[in-house]
Amino acid sequence: MSKKQIYKPRPVSGFPEWLPQVRRVEQQCLDHIRRIFESYGYCSIETPAVEELDVINAKGGDPAEDGGADVDKEIYVLERLHKEENDKESRLALHFDQTVPLARYVAQHFNDLTFPFKRYQMQKVWRGERPQAGRFREFYQCDIDVINPDHLPRHFDAEMPAIIWEILSSLPGMDQEARTGEARTGIIKEHIQLRISNRKILLGLLEAQGIEDTVDVTRWIDKLDKIGQGAIEKELGDIGLTSAQITDILTLAQTKDIRSVKAQNDTMKEGLEELVFVMDNLAHLPEGAAVADLSIVRGLDYYTGTVYETVFTDDPGYGSICSGGRYDDLAGNYINKHLPGVGISIGFSRLFDRLRDKQKLDTSRISPADILVVMPSEELRGLTAQTAQTLRQRGYNVEQYHNPQKIGKQIGYAEKKGIPYVWFPPFDADGKHEVKDLSKGEQSEADPQTWKI
Amino acid sequence: MSKKQIYKPRPVSGFPEWLPQVRRVEQQCLDHIRRIFESYGYCSIETPAVEELDVINAKGGDPAEDGGADVDKEIYVLERLHKEENDKESRLALHFDQTVPLARYVAQHFNDLTFPFKRYQMQKVWRGERPQAGRFREFYQCDIDVINPDHLPRHFDAEMPAIIWEILSSLPGMDQEARTGEARTGIIKEHIQLRISNRKILLGLLEAQGIEDTVDVTRWIDKLDKIGQGAIEKELGDIGLTSAQITDILTLAQTKDIRSVKAQNDTMKEGLEELVFVMDNLAHLPEGAAVADLSIVRGLDYYTGTVYETVFTDDPGYGSICSGGRYDDLAGNYINKHLPGVGISIGFSRLFDRLRDKQKLDTSRISPADILVVMPSEELRGLTAQTAQTLRQRGYNVEQYHNPQKIGKQIGYAEKKGIPYVWFPPFDADGKHEVKDLSKGEQSEADPQTWKI
Repeated sequence: MSKKQIYKPRPVSGFPEWLPQVRRVEQQCLDHIRRIFESYGYCSIETPAVEELDVINAKGGDPAEDGGADVDKEIYVLERLHKEENDKESRLALHFDQTVPLARYVAQHFNDLTFPFKRYQMQKVWRGERPQAGRFREFYQCDIDVINPDHLPRHFDAEMPAIIWEILSSLPGMDQEARTGEARTGIIKEHIQLRISNRKILLGLLEAQGIEDTVDVTRWIDKLDKIGQGAIEKELGDIGLTSAQITDILTLAQTKDIRSVKAQNDTMKEGLEELVFVMDNLAHLPEGAAVADLSIVRGLDYYTGTVYETVFTDDPGYGSICSGGRYDDLAGNYINKHLPGVGISIGFSRLFDRLRDKQKLDTSRISPADILVVMPSEELRGLTAQTAQTLRQRGYNVEQYHNPQKIGKQIGYAEKKGIPYVWFPPFDADGKHEVKDLSKGEQSEADPQTWKI
Repeated sequence: MSKKQIYKPRPVSGFPEWLPQVRRVEQQCLDHIRRIFESYGYCSIETPAVEELDVINAKGGDPAEDGGADVDKEIYVLERLHKEENDKESRLALHFDQTVPLARYVAQHFNDLTFPFKRYQMQKVWRGERPQAGRFREFYQCDIDVINPDHLPRHFDAEMPAIIWEILSSLPGMDQEARTGEARTGIIKEHIQLRISNRKILLGLLEAQGIEDTVDVTRWIDKLDKIGQGAIEKELGDIGLTSAQITDILTLAQTKDIRSVKAQNDTMKEGLEELVFVMDNLAHLPEGAAVADLSIVRGLDYYTGTVYETVFTDDPGYGSICSGGRYDDLAGNYINKHLPGVGISIGFSRLFDRLRDKQKLDTSRISPADILVVMPSEELRGLTAQTAQTLRQRGYNVEQYHNPQKIGKQIGYAEKKGIPYVWFPPFDADGKHEVKDLSKGEQSEADPQTWKI
């Protein structure tokens, strides 16, 4: 036998991978998100990891305007390692978000869907950007969106943040100031905040003031939090706004009481009414859970009404972990229909990685097993298997130890894997079943047919 | 506004995508598989969609021998659409199975894992092969494997088929001849069969007979089912075997009673003992669920002992839907340790697509909602929301209708989405809550705090 060559593997930068005890919590978090999405009646879809490059390129919008140019750079296209010549197949690219796939899906399956189409989607997406802290090249997004032809009721603009609050306030690992009553009403008001605005309000003001350069103005207002009022005043002056205009804009962006804002035209009026409707419908949330914040504009993208951001209140600089908004026309590039929508996306991997990094996760259990059934001897293999199966059929996760090793070694294995209970089948004909609670160190007689954790 | 150009999307061949009512059943199936994997104490891992191309190329084995050459052709590598020059990053490729990633994972995290390492993995994999019926370019695999340094107890060779039987015999959509007792003991003996062998038995016989060309012989034996005894006899004669040798080999391959086989050397003896151990430990399964079948050799790959296949008994030509076996050394290309393992993989997408194609799936429900709460009027929006939330907190999936439209329209929406119950909050101060069971057409008073489905 010739000497083997070893290729020592290393982590691939930007592609996270967890040990089983971390993956376990990740699954709990994803299950939690899915359960709450479904509790509001959203259905699941999954789209392929790839889209045709033509579909991605048809997504429309001015690249300079919606950040498309940057995203384009990050797109991964596929090539077969050994491609046949004259390969006429269309080029495929990994999806970089779940919005382009949703738009394509709705257009393609339009006649088979029931509207309003309420869907959630929890998949990995890929972006070939330069890796840096908190940025991944492969990451989970958890999205909900509602699409309806022609007119989408504003009910959904209010439902999105309610769902997100319910999810984030009770996510495993999330800090919780206090938890009152049921598991799904945790309060974390000092830790997470949803910030909501409506782009029609600021855009309406600019329109009323005759300011045409809305892209530059919204770009600067978006940076208000980061660079401060003085810098913004200077920048807005440099692009030609008068001080009166600048004062009006900054006063609006910093208004805390949206009911005090006077609409200067129909666009502003519409935006204000919609935002008040949304906030009224969130009145049942704890104070500070969701606030109206007119400085939120969500960059330069395609949102046309309600917009959402979510920040850690003790660390807003970490950026939004959950964002979205309303768009006037989702799939116009793929189908000749007017399809308004509203949606929100949890940047799951970024959120989860922060909780992991801050050691908020309970990673004490490597195994999903509740019980390890020990094997006293080879002769008792059948009895051990039968005991394990009885407990399994009663709904427990049960590992049967694989060999009749010393009992101490078998218990040590359970401890190492974080399995909380060790079960002893009777060692002889007169014996009884016993179970040991490892956390308490207590051992007692038990019947596999009736015992409960 | 300029006229928009519409890019009409089309399905991408080989990349399946389901409507919500099919995806719903797919999720139920995947949940079912995961629940049973976990009930045996297997932990979840997820690896990135990509591996370094060097890792894949280091996987070793003679390509001509293990079919590697064909798989290599199907590998998708990634390129960034707009790659910077002098990009020194290593090439990445989408994984084409979950075994190479597992080997790399175990080598990379060796010091952080607890052994025996029992893991399951349910992810999509990609192969750029020419699309054809029942073959996908993107598909789910559901794998379990156990790895242990130096020596892996044969306990696990027997555990694998027991788990697979439990999963497949009660998978939603799977035909069931009869179901006895609990949900997880369904009997489908005429529909699915696990066929088990041990490669040491046939290889031991060839060794005892002094036949060196084991690759060709096993390749032909693997085709016994397809091309028949006569053709195999001719082919084995053509590669130089004597008629006595051919008779011995075919007699062995067709033996139904493994206990009657006489070992001609230690290799055969070991294989027979291992196979008898596995079959003894599966004695609790229904008759015909798992059979020893010495013609199973699992092609020319890296299995060294126990091998598994699973077929539809009424359509064995569809091929194996769940295969695997024992390998002597999993990660030898990545780490200087001897790591034997045993594993089995459900070809989930192929299995699911067949169930879908044969209309075995219950696709009557588009929405996960159990209840639609109707909105009688805009004034009662708050009461409607509160009623929905009360039911949700009691564990039901509840959709709140979004607009105070005609009640008939709201009920029609529930019917269209397959939501089984419609809830009516009181329409006036003296009114009571009522609920309608759409399947029975019955409507009655109900209290959202106590009502049960």
